[in-house]
Amino acid sequence: MEIASLQSALGQYFAPWVQALDLRVLAADGDGVQVLLPQQAQLARIGGMVCGQAMMAAADTCMVLALMQHWGEFKPCTTVQLNSSFLKPLAGQDGRVHARVIRVGKTLAFGEIDIQGAQDGRSVCRASTTYALL
Amino acid sequence: MEIASLQSALGQYFAPWVQALDLRVLAADGDGVQVLLPQQAQLARIGGMVCGQAMMAAADTCMVLALMQHWGEFKPCTTVQLNSSFLKPLAGQDGRVHARVIRVGKTLAFGEIDIQGAQDGRSVCRASTTYALL
Amino acid sequence: MEIASLQSALGQYFAPWVQALDLRVLAADGDGVQVLLPQQAQLARIGGMVCGQAMMAAADTCMVLALMQHWGEFKPCTTVQLNSSFLKPLAGQDGRVHARVIRVGKTLAFGEIDIQGAQDGRSVCRASTTYALL
Amino acid sequence: MEIASLQSALGQYFAPWVQALDLRVLAADGDGVQVLLPQQAQLARIGGMVCGQAMMAAADTCMVLALMQHWGEFKPCTTVQLNSSFLKPLAGQDGRVHARVIRVGKTLAFGEIDIQGAQDGRSVCRASTTYALL
Repeated sequence: MEIASLQSALGQYFAPWVQALDLRVLAADGDGVQVLLPQQAQLARIGGMVCGQAMMAAADTCMVLALMQHWGEFKPCTTVQLNSSFLKPLAGQDGRVHARVIRVGKTLAFGEIDIQGAQDGRSVCRASTTYALL
Repeated sequence: MEIASLQSALGQYFAPWVQALDLRVLAADGDGVQVLLPQQAQLARIGGMVCGQAMMAAADTCMVLALMQHWGEFKPCTTVQLNSSFLKPLAGQDGRVHARVIRVGKTLAFGEIDIQGAQDGRSVCRASTTYALL
Repeated sequence: MEIASLQSALGQYFAPWVQALDLRVLAADGDGVQVLLPQQAQLARIGGMVCGQAMMAAADTCMVLALMQHWGEFKPCTTVQLNSSFLKPLAGQDGRVHARVIRVGKTLAFGEIDIQGAQDGRSVCRASTTYALL
Repeated sequence: MEIASLQSALGQYFAPWVQALDLRVLAADGDGVQVLLPQQAQLARIGGMVCGQAMMAAADTCMVLALMQHWGEFKPCTTVQLNSSFLKPLAGQDGRVHARVIRVGKTLAFGEIDIQGAQDGRSVCRASTTYALL
């Protein structure tokens, strides 16, 4: 799918509170989908670090885009599991979220997400997720 | 801690985007902390279901309050892991989030969270989490 | 199901390597299934602690019994996810594994497992798991 | 570290029940450690599939070797969390386990494990794990 279509899906299929993350689709190809998670004061805890809640939400959301990219269209699916590990703080820079589809079966799909600092390229959060196909 | 102190902590230690969840502390005792996650259009996906991203954010946030309740004060800590399972949709009712501290060691704390429909009392999301104490 | 039937299932549906755990069904009722994980030198790391690998294997195995108990019979299912947290070492005592079915849907089942020291009753391992029903 | 040293560590630091997996170190370099999980009747469920319990145990064990490889020596550490996803059955072939260290901090280390069929190279199990450094 084209980047513009995925960007438009962000405004169509997600809750307004998720849209407030202001995610921007950067790339979409055979290796998954990448979105920018811009730093903004709304997402910052004391100390200026991006809150973990925003990273989990960005991971889940980016994965839905990666499944759309895999299928070439939006299909209804629901998150069954999302496991997140927080490796180090994300502060003073945007985040770059990369979601990859690992396997799509008949009833389940598996994916993995890596969030890196957009400047230093270091992983700050890694997540794995399972989706049920409806 | 008193409910009012925990409610006030929600406005003090968390990002504005997390505060937009409008969580309300319902109970705080030896069995952990319970907060209400009010249904609101901002959190709803198409179909009126509360988005999973909001449930993960509420789980993580409520757990921080449960750790405060455990210690009797706020102490800096950071989420290392949060694993969430989504059992069924939450729609047409508020959510009731219950966070319990399972174990607090010297450097790590473990907790579990159950989110139920506030009306029907059925579990919609279960999460387990690990925190590093700083 | 009766305890004897579940004990017999342990010898019937599981790999010999899993049977070497020597699990013994202690209870099976509306609150799930409990099995004993006897301490034995084969399962011990240096220092006499029961290895985490044995606890994960016991958790997964006990959950299959809990699903049998739920259904009243063995049905084919496959583990999709198993998340384990290790709270403290298990040493110098048997383990008591308690598996509870949290929700059974059409295609997925969710469960949670608690492993406690059989003597001191303290949790050493907590796990959550998702099964696909075939 | 040399492959022979890691192979010898398998016989030194792990429980006999884990040694029965008969893991064989295949590679150890900057990209982590790879071990072979040979198919054997002891590990097979009905239908000839390698049981998930063996894959989780192999994942955890291989990760300890990857941390040794990272440090150049054995250091005491303990598994805090291990999350496993089972993508498809492993049957009729050996497994190839690849453990990578993702990040090592002062008190915590993070890793990821991929288990593939040794013949077809397809992922059957993916795991992520957190270790506490003692």
